[in-house]
Amino acid sequence: MITGLDHIAIAVEDIEQAIVQWQALTGAKLLHRETVTSQNVHVAMLGIGEFKIELIAPVNADSGVAKFMAARGPGLHHIALRADSTQAELDRLMSVGVRVIDSVARTGAEQTEVGFLHPKSASGVLIEIVEHTHGSRRK
Amino acid sequence: MITGLDHIAIAVEDIEQAIVQWQALTGAKLLHRETVTSQNVHVAMLGIGEFKIELIAPVNADSGVAKFMAARGPGLHHIALRADSTQAELDRLMSVGVRVIDSVARTGAEQTEVGFLHPKSASGVLIEIVEHTHGSRRK
Repeated sequence: MITGLDHIAIAVEDIEQAIVQWQALTGAKLLHRETVTSQNVHVAMLGIGEFKIELIAPVNADSGVAKFMAARGPGLHHIALRADSTQAELDRLMSVGVRVIDSVARTGAEQTEVGFLHPKSASGVLIEIVEHTHGSRRK
Repeated sequence: MITGLDHIAIAVEDIEQAIVQWQALTGAKLLHRETVTSQNVHVAMLGIGEFKIELIAPVNADSGVAKFMAARGPGLHHIALRADSTQAELDRLMSVGVRVIDSVARTGAEQTEVGFLHPKSASGVLIEIVEHTHGSRRK
Protein backbone atom coordinates (compact mmCIF):
# COMPACT_ATOMS: atom_id res chain seq x y z
CA MET A 1 0.00 0.00 0.00
CA ILE A 2 1.23 3.49 -0.90
CA THR A 3 1.17 5.71 2.19
CA GLY A 4 2.49 9.03 0.90
CA LEU A 5 5.37 10.87 -0.67
CA ASP A 6 8.89 9.99 0.42
CA HIS A 7 10.78 12.56 -1.64
CA ILE A 8 11.16 14.16 -5.04
CA ALA A 9 14.48 13.85 -6.85
CA ILE A 10 16.16 16.50 -8.96
CA ALA A 11 19.01 15.79 -11.38
CA VAL A 12 21.76 18.41 -11.08
CA GLU A 13 25.18 18.92 -12.65
CA ASP A 14 27.12 19.91 -9.53
CA ILE A 15 26.03 18.62 -6.12
CA GLU A 16 27.88 21.31 -4.09
CA GLN A 17 26.44 24.18 -6.10
CA ALA A 18 22.95 22.65 -6.04
CA ILE A 19 22.95 22.24 -2.24
CA VAL A 20 23.76 25.93 -1.78
CA GLN A 21 21.22 26.96 -4.43
CA TRP A 22 18.33 24.88 -3.05
CA GLN A 23 19.01 25.93 0.52
CA ALA A 24 18.87 29.59 -0.58
CA LEU A 25 15.71 28.96 -2.59
CA THR A 26 13.77 27.09 0.06
CA GLY A 27 15.43 27.38 3.45
CA ALA A 28 15.78 23.57 3.47
CA LYS A 29 18.15 21.80 5.86
CA LEU A 30 20.80 19.36 4.64
CA LEU A 31 19.78 16.01 6.15
CA HIS A 32 22.11 13.48 4.58
CA ARG A 33 24.86 13.03 1.98
CA GLU A 34 25.96 9.85 0.31
CA THR A 35 27.68 8.56 -2.81
CA VAL A 36 25.76 5.54 -4.13
CA THR A 37 28.50 3.76 -6.03
CA SER A 38 26.17 1.11 -7.48
CA GLN A 39 24.35 3.90 -9.34
CA ASN A 40 27.31 6.27 -9.87
CA VAL A 41 25.57 9.17 -8.16
CA HIS A 42 26.22 11.71 -5.45
CA VAL A 43 23.09 12.21 -3.36
CA ALA A 44 22.12 15.03 -0.99
CA MET A 45 18.84 14.93 0.91
CA LEU A 46 17.34 18.27 1.94
CA GLY A 47 14.34 18.70 4.24
CA ILE A 48 11.63 21.35 4.59
CA GLY A 49 9.41 20.19 7.42
CA GLU A 50 8.29 16.69 6.44
CA PHE A 51 9.07 17.27 2.77
CA LYS A 52 12.34 15.95 1.36
CA ILE A 53 14.19 16.94 -1.81
CA GLU A 54 16.87 14.58 -3.10
CA LEU A 55 19.54 16.19 -5.27
CA ILE A 56 21.34 13.68 -7.49
CA ALA A 57 24.47 14.38 -9.50
CA PRO A 58 26.41 11.95 -11.70
CA VAL A 59 29.77 10.64 -10.50
CA ASN A 60 30.76 10.01 -14.12
CA ALA A 61 29.34 9.79 -17.63
CA ASP A 62 28.23 6.17 -17.12
CA SER A 63 25.65 7.25 -14.57
CA GLY A 64 22.01 6.98 -15.62
CA VAL A 65 21.57 10.53 -14.33
CA ALA A 66 24.29 11.75 -16.71
CA LYS A 67 22.42 10.17 -19.60
CA PHE A 68 19.13 11.68 -18.39
CA MET A 69 20.70 15.16 -18.33
CA ALA A 70 22.38 14.68 -21.72
CA ALA A 71 18.90 14.09 -23.17
CA ARG A 72 16.76 16.49 -21.11
CA GLY A 73 19.02 18.77 -19.08
CA PRO A 74 18.86 19.08 -15.29
CA GLY A 75 15.46 19.05 -13.63
CA LEU A 76 12.84 16.85 -11.99
CA HIS A 77 14.05 13.25 -12.25
CA HIS A 78 11.66 11.05 -10.25
CA ILE A 79 9.21 10.94 -7.37
CA ALA A 80 9.51 8.42 -4.57
CA LEU A 81 6.33 7.09 -2.99
CA ARG A 82 6.47 5.45 0.43
CA ALA A 83 5.02 1.96 0.81
CA ASP A 84 4.64 -0.37 3.79
CA SER A 85 6.22 -3.10 1.63
CA THR A 86 8.05 -2.36 -1.62
CA GLN A 87 7.88 -5.97 -2.80
CA ALA A 88 4.16 -6.29 -2.06
CA GLU A 89 3.52 -3.06 -3.93
CA LEU A 90 5.60 -4.16 -6.94
CA ASP A 91 3.66 -7.45 -6.97
CA ARG A 92 0.31 -5.65 -6.76
CA LEU A 93 1.23 -3.26 -9.57
CA MET A 94 2.54 -6.01 -11.85
CA SER A 95 -0.67 -7.98 -11.27
CA VAL A 96 -2.72 -5.08 -12.67
CA GLY A 97 -0.50 -4.66 -15.71
CA VAL A 98 1.80 -1.85 -14.60
CA ARG A 99 5.25 -2.06 -16.21
CA VAL A 100 8.12 -2.09 -13.74
CA ILE A 101 11.88 -1.61 -14.05
CA ASP A 102 12.54 -3.66 -10.90
CA SER A 103 10.37 -6.73 -10.43
CA VAL A 104 12.34 -7.56 -7.26
CA ALA A 105 12.95 -4.95 -4.55
CA ARG A 106 16.58 -3.98 -4.02
CA THR A 107 18.54 -2.03 -1.42
CA GLY A 108 18.63 1.75 -1.86
CA ALA A 109 20.17 4.64 0.07
CA GLU A 110 19.71 4.91 3.85
CA GLN A 111 18.69 1.30 4.46
CA THR A 112 15.64 1.32 2.26
CA GLU A 113 14.08 -1.28 0.00
CA VAL A 114 13.34 0.29 -3.37
CA GLY A 115 11.90 -0.55 -6.77
CA PHE A 116 11.29 1.60 -9.84
CA LEU A 117 8.22 1.58 -12.11
CA HIS A 118 8.45 2.24 -15.83
CA PRO A 119 7.52 5.81 -16.88
CA LYS A 120 5.38 4.37 -19.70
CA SER A 121 2.93 3.24 -17.01
CA ALA A 122 2.80 6.60 -15.21
CA SER A 123 2.27 9.48 -17.66
CA GLY A 124 5.99 9.66 -18.34
CA VAL A 125 6.89 9.98 -14.64
CA LEU A 126 9.64 7.80 -13.18
CA ILE A 127 8.31 6.47 -9.85
CA GLU A 128 10.38 4.90 -7.09
CA ILE A 129 8.64 2.82 -4.41
CA VAL A 130 10.44 3.16 -1.06
CA GLU A 131 10.15 1.15 2.14
CA HIS A 132 12.07 2.29 5.23
CA THR A 133 13.27 -0.89 6.87
CA HIS A 134 15.42 0.37 9.75
CA GLY A 135 16.08 3.28 12.05
CA SER A 136 14.35 6.27 10.53
CA ARG A 137 11.13 4.35 9.92
CA ARG A 138 8.40 6.81 9.09
CA LYS A 139 4.87 5.56 8.65
CA MET B 1 8.89 31.58 4.30
CA ILE B 2 8.56 28.20 2.59
CA THR B 3 6.76 25.79 4.91
CA GLY B 4 6.60 22.59 2.86
CA LEU B 5 5.34 20.94 -0.29
CA ASP B 6 1.88 21.82 -1.53
CA HIS B 7 1.74 19.45 -4.51
CA ILE B 8 3.56 18.10 -7.51
CA ALA B 9 2.06 18.61 -10.96
CA ILE B 10 2.11 16.16 -13.84
CA ALA B 11 1.34 17.10 -17.44
CA VAL B 12 -0.96 14.55 -19.08
CA GLU B 13 -2.65 14.24 -22.47
CA ASP B 14 -6.10 13.06 -21.29
CA ILE B 15 -7.38 14.08 -17.86
CA GLU B 16 -10.00 11.30 -17.59
CA GLN B 17 -7.56 8.54 -18.47
CA ALA B 18 -4.90 9.97 -16.17
CA ILE B 19 -7.26 10.13 -13.17
CA VAL B 20 -8.08 6.43 -13.57
CA GLN B 21 -4.42 5.53 -14.14
CA TRP B 22 -3.05 7.44 -11.14
CA GLN B 23 -5.77 6.15 -8.84
CA ALA B 24 -4.89 2.58 -9.86
CA LEU B 25 -1.17 3.27 -9.43
CA THR B 26 -1.32 4.91 -6.04
CA GLY B 27 -4.73 4.43 -4.43
CA ALA B 28 -5.09 8.23 -4.35
CA LYS B 29 -8.47 9.89 -3.83
CA LEU B 30 -9.87 12.47 -6.24
CA LEU B 31 -10.08 15.69 -4.19
CA HIS B 32 -11.00 18.37 -6.68
CA ARG B 33 -11.57 19.05 -10.38
CA GLU B 34 -11.48 22.37 -12.16
CA THR B 35 -10.93 23.92 -15.57
CA VAL B 36 -8.70 26.98 -15.19
CA THR B 37 -9.73 28.96 -18.25
CA SER B 38 -7.04 31.64 -17.75
CA GLN B 39 -4.41 28.95 -18.29
CA ASN B 40 -6.36 26.70 -20.70
CA VAL B 41 -5.97 23.64 -18.50
CA HIS B 42 -8.10 20.92 -16.96
CA VAL B 43 -6.90 20.21 -13.42
CA ALA B 44 -7.55 17.21 -11.16
CA MET B 45 -6.12 17.09 -7.64
CA LEU B 46 -5.51 13.66 -6.14
CA GLY B 47 -4.55 12.99 -2.52
CA ILE B 48 -2.58 10.27 -0.76
CA GLY B 49 -2.61 11.15 2.91
CA GLU B 50 -1.19 14.69 3.09
CA PHE B 51 0.47 14.40 -0.32
CA LYS B 52 -1.26 15.89 -3.35
CA ILE B 53 -0.74 15.17 -7.05
CA GLU B 54 -2.11 17.68 -9.55
CA LEU B 55 -2.83 16.29 -13.01
CA ILE B 56 -2.94 19.00 -15.68
CA ALA B 57 -4.15 18.52 -19.23
CA PRO B 58 -4.38 21.13 -21.97
CA VAL B 59 -7.80 22.44 -23.02
CA ASN B 60 -6.36 23.35 -26.43
CA ALA B 61 -3.08 23.78 -28.29
CA ASP B 62 -2.62 27.34 -26.94
CA SER B 63 -2.12 26.00 -23.43
CA GLY B 64 1.38 26.25 -21.98
CA VAL B 65 1.01 22.61 -20.96
CA ALA B 66 0.37 21.63 -24.60
CA LYS B 67 3.60 23.39 -25.58
CA PHE B 68 5.48 21.69 -22.72
CA MET B 69 4.29 18.26 -23.88
CA ALA B 70 5.04 19.02 -27.53
CA ALA B 71 8.66 19.63 -26.50
CA ARG B 72 9.14 17.01 -23.74
CA GLY B 73 6.16 14.67 -23.69
CA PRO B 74 3.95 14.09 -20.65
CA GLY B 75 5.60 13.93 -17.24
CA LEU B 76 6.59 15.94 -14.18
CA HIS B 77 5.72 19.57 -14.87
CA HIS B 78 6.32 21.58 -11.69
CA ILE B 79 6.45 21.42 -7.92
CA ALA B 80 4.43 23.75 -5.72
CA LEU B 81 5.92 24.89 -2.43
CA ARG B 82 3.68 26.31 0.27
CA ALA B 83 4.49 29.71 1.71
CA ASP B 84 2.91 31.80 4.44
CA SER B 85 2.91 34.71 1.97
CA THR B 86 3.50 34.26 -1.76
CA GLN B 87 4.27 37.94 -2.33
CA ALA B 88 6.74 38.11 0.57
CA GLU B 89 8.47 34.99 -0.72
CA LEU B 90 8.67 36.37 -4.28
CA ASP B 91 10.12 39.61 -2.89
CA ARG B 92 12.67 37.71 -0.78
CA LEU B 93 13.75 35.54 -3.71
CA MET B 94 14.07 38.48 -6.12
CA SER B 95 16.17 40.33 -3.54
CA VAL B 96 18.72 37.49 -3.57
CA GLY B 97 18.87 37.34 -7.37
CA VAL B 98 16.43 34.52 -8.12
CA ARG B 99 14.71 34.92 -11.49
CA VAL B 100 10.92 34.85 -11.33
CA ILE B 101 8.18 34.48 -13.92
CA ASP B 102 5.66 36.31 -11.71
CA SER B 103 7.01 39.28 -9.80
CA VAL B 104 3.50 39.94 -8.47
CA ALA B 105 1.39 37.16 -6.91
CA ARG B 106 -1.76 36.26 -8.80
CA THR B 107 -4.86 34.16 -8.11
CA GLY B 108 -4.56 30.42 -8.78
CA ALA B 109 -6.90 27.44 -8.41
CA GLU B 110 -8.88 26.89 -5.18
CA GLN B 111 -8.53 30.43 -3.83
CA THR B 112 -4.76 30.49 -3.68
CA GLU B 113 -2.21 33.22 -4.30
CA VAL B 114 0.49 31.87 -6.59
CA GLY B 115 3.69 32.91 -8.31
CA PHE B 116 6.13 30.97 -10.49
CA LEU B 117 9.93 31.08 -10.37
CA HIS B 118 12.07 30.67 -13.46
CA PRO B 119 13.53 27.16 -13.97
CA LYS B 120 16.92 28.75 -14.74
CA SER B 121 17.16 29.64 -11.06
CA ALA B 122 16.24 26.15 -9.80
CA SER B 123 18.24 23.45 -11.60
CA GLY B 124 15.72 23.39 -14.44
CA VAL B 125 12.74 22.84 -12.11
CA LEU B 126 9.63 24.98 -12.51
CA ILE B 127 8.59 26.04 -8.98
CA GLU B 128 5.22 27.47 -8.00
CA ILE B 129 4.89 29.31 -4.68
CA VAL B 130 1.41 28.77 -3.19
CA GLU B 131 -0.39 30.55 -0.38
CA HIS B 132 -3.77 29.25 0.78
CA THR B 133 -5.79 32.34 1.55
CA HIS B 134 -9.25 30.98 2.40
CA GLY B 135 -11.13 27.94 3.60
CA SER B 136 -8.75 25.02 3.26
CA ARG B 137 -5.90 26.89 4.89
CA ARG B 138 -3.18 24.40 5.75
CA LYS B 139 -0.15 25.62 7.63
